[in-house]
Amino acid sequence: MRKIHVIGIGAGDPEQLTLQAVRVLRGTDVFFLLDKGEVKSDLTQLRRDMLDAHIPEGTYRLVEARDPERDRKAGGAAYSPAVGDWRSARAEIYERLIAEELGEDESGAFLVWGDPSLYDSTLGILEEILERGAVAFEYDVVPGISSVSALVARHRTGLNRVAGPVQITTGRRLSEGFPDGVDDVVVMLDAHQAFRRYADQDIDIYWGAYLGTPDEILASGPIAEAAPRIERLRAEARERKGWIMDTYLLRRHPKGE
Amino acid sequence: MRKIHVIGIGAGDPEQLTLQAVRVLRGTDVFFLLDKGEVKSDLTQLRRDMLDAHIPEGTYRLVEARDPERDRKAGGAAYSPAVGDWRSARAEIYERLIAEELGEDESGAFLVWGDPSLYDSTLGILEEILERGAVAFEYDVVPGISSVSALVARHRTGLNRVAGPVQITTGRRLSEGFPDGVDDVVVMLDAHQAFRRYADQDIDIYWGAYLGTPDEILASGPIAEAAPRIERLRAEARERKGWIMDTYLLRRHPKGE
Ligand SMILES: C[S@@+](CC[C@H](N)C(=O)[O-])C[C@H]1O[C@@H](n2cnc3c(N)ncnc32)[C@H](O)[C@@H]1O
Ligand SMILES: C[S@@+](CC[C@H](N)C(=O)[O-])C[C@H]1O[C@@H](n2cnc3c(N)ncnc32)[C@H](O)[C@@H]1O
Repeated sequence: MRKIHVIGIGAGDPEQLTLQAVRVLRGTDVFFLLDKGEVKSDLTQLRRDMLDAHIPEGTYRLVEARDPERDRKAGGAAYSPAVGDWRSARAEIYERLIAEELGEDESGAFLVWGDPSLYDSTLGILEEILERGAVAFEYDVVPGISSVSALVARHRTGLNRVAGPVQITTGRRLSEGFPDGVDDVVVMLDAHQAFRRYADQDIDIYWGAYLGTPDEILASGPIAEAAPRIERLRAEARERKGWIMDTYLLRRHPKGE
Repeated sequence: MRKIHVIGIGAGDPEQLTLQAVRVLRGTDVFFLLDKGEVKSDLTQLRRDMLDAHIPEGTYRLVEARDPERDRKAGGAAYSPAVGDWRSARAEIYERLIAEELGEDESGAFLVWGDPSLYDSTLGILEEILERGAVAFEYDVVPGISSVSALVARHRTGLNRVAGPVQITTGRRLSEGFPDGVDDVVVMLDAHQAFRRYADQDIDIYWGAYLGTPDEILASGPIAEAAPRIERLRAEARERKGWIMDTYLLRRHPKGE
């Protein structure tokens, strides 16, 4: 039976690999690297470097493919269907890769940034392929350090306050309103700096970009003061590198605190 | 200047240590192990085993102390103040340990289960000690695999659904009502199986106890069917071992799905 490992490789720092991830990497025959296009090729290189650092050359095969483009123009309500189409397009590519590149008794791996459980479609895609039934395999998941854990570690703060809840959400959702019932909110996938909308509130922001990489940038403070600073840092970095990955925690002070 | 490392060591599986954690462990002079009393001594042993596995004997010192008891009888609204007192009691102990056991140019470490950012008081305690001003030190945080990441990896599922939010909360809060605005909820620190209240709803539960350890138990399914099964497994395991640590994800099906 073919075996697939979905391996969380941490948010950018090669030292965030777990011992389990290293062991599983070493036992893998074929790595599938899907490239999101030129802007993110730094990230593909980082993954290649990790393989070089931990696995003897010549003991594995590397299969590279191009990830299909997501239709980013489909906005608002159309978001989920567009993601669905995109996922199916990826499922087709992954299915072909597994069927053609992986021998019946070999193991393959997908390397996922951060932790595979957060805003990553690999698990959904594998389930979709199994449902189609054209190719059979077993799979397991190796957890990784998420960008959320990396963010708060660098800021030396917790995610939640004593016995309080924390929500992890997207920039798109934050732009529709501050989530109900929580004062601590982590925001991912925010291309539009949705935090700016809350700059007049009693909120602290803990922001990080390119976490764990040599380009890492951190900024924090009361949002009124920090928001313009972060906007500037973000624009400069994006200009310089051509792409950006950032995450932040918003911590609202309950009234009267 | 004294240096303190707060090291996330994963949820129970020694292989969940990151390469960074191993490197920092190896450079640490003094480990502070705080024991919560006899019921959790398995956990203290697990930490000792990790040190034995990764650091040459004789290159570090181990300082063990007893964690103060938390006043668990203080219920409801009294919860936070009770936690506050408890935190201060711990701060006093930690302060004394750091001042007495750590030389001026030495480094010490606290080993934290899972990720230090989730429901752990170590960072708050260190800040409290620094505020008191009696002892000075620098500190940093090494992120770890949380029990949340471990849980969903074992169940091979994501935390959020496509572009959706996820909330992490406590059993106490879940017993007051299902959180607003989210359909995916991770519950920690639940001594009373608050999920039972939702057994008549269209919810899937993904439950795990002693994750990452040889005693690991997993169960999942539609909550109506799975809840009694989990209650039974939980009671048996608790009886057998004398203590239990469990976490679960509730995934509510939006109406009409
Ligand atoms: C498709 S999601 C994948 C998240 C990933 N599975 C994780 O656990 O971090 C991509 C989002 O994660 C966040 N992210 C991932 N890596 C990051 C990094 N190194 N620094 C800052 N944010 C990062 C950003 O919010 C980005 O928009
Ligand atoms: C004080 S909190 C610490 C959480 C920890 N910092 C983490 O990241 O997982 C303790 C709670 O974490 C969860 N937990 C920790 N380790 C666990 C394990 N090995 N299996 C299941 N649940 C665990 C349980 O919900 C427990 O009540």
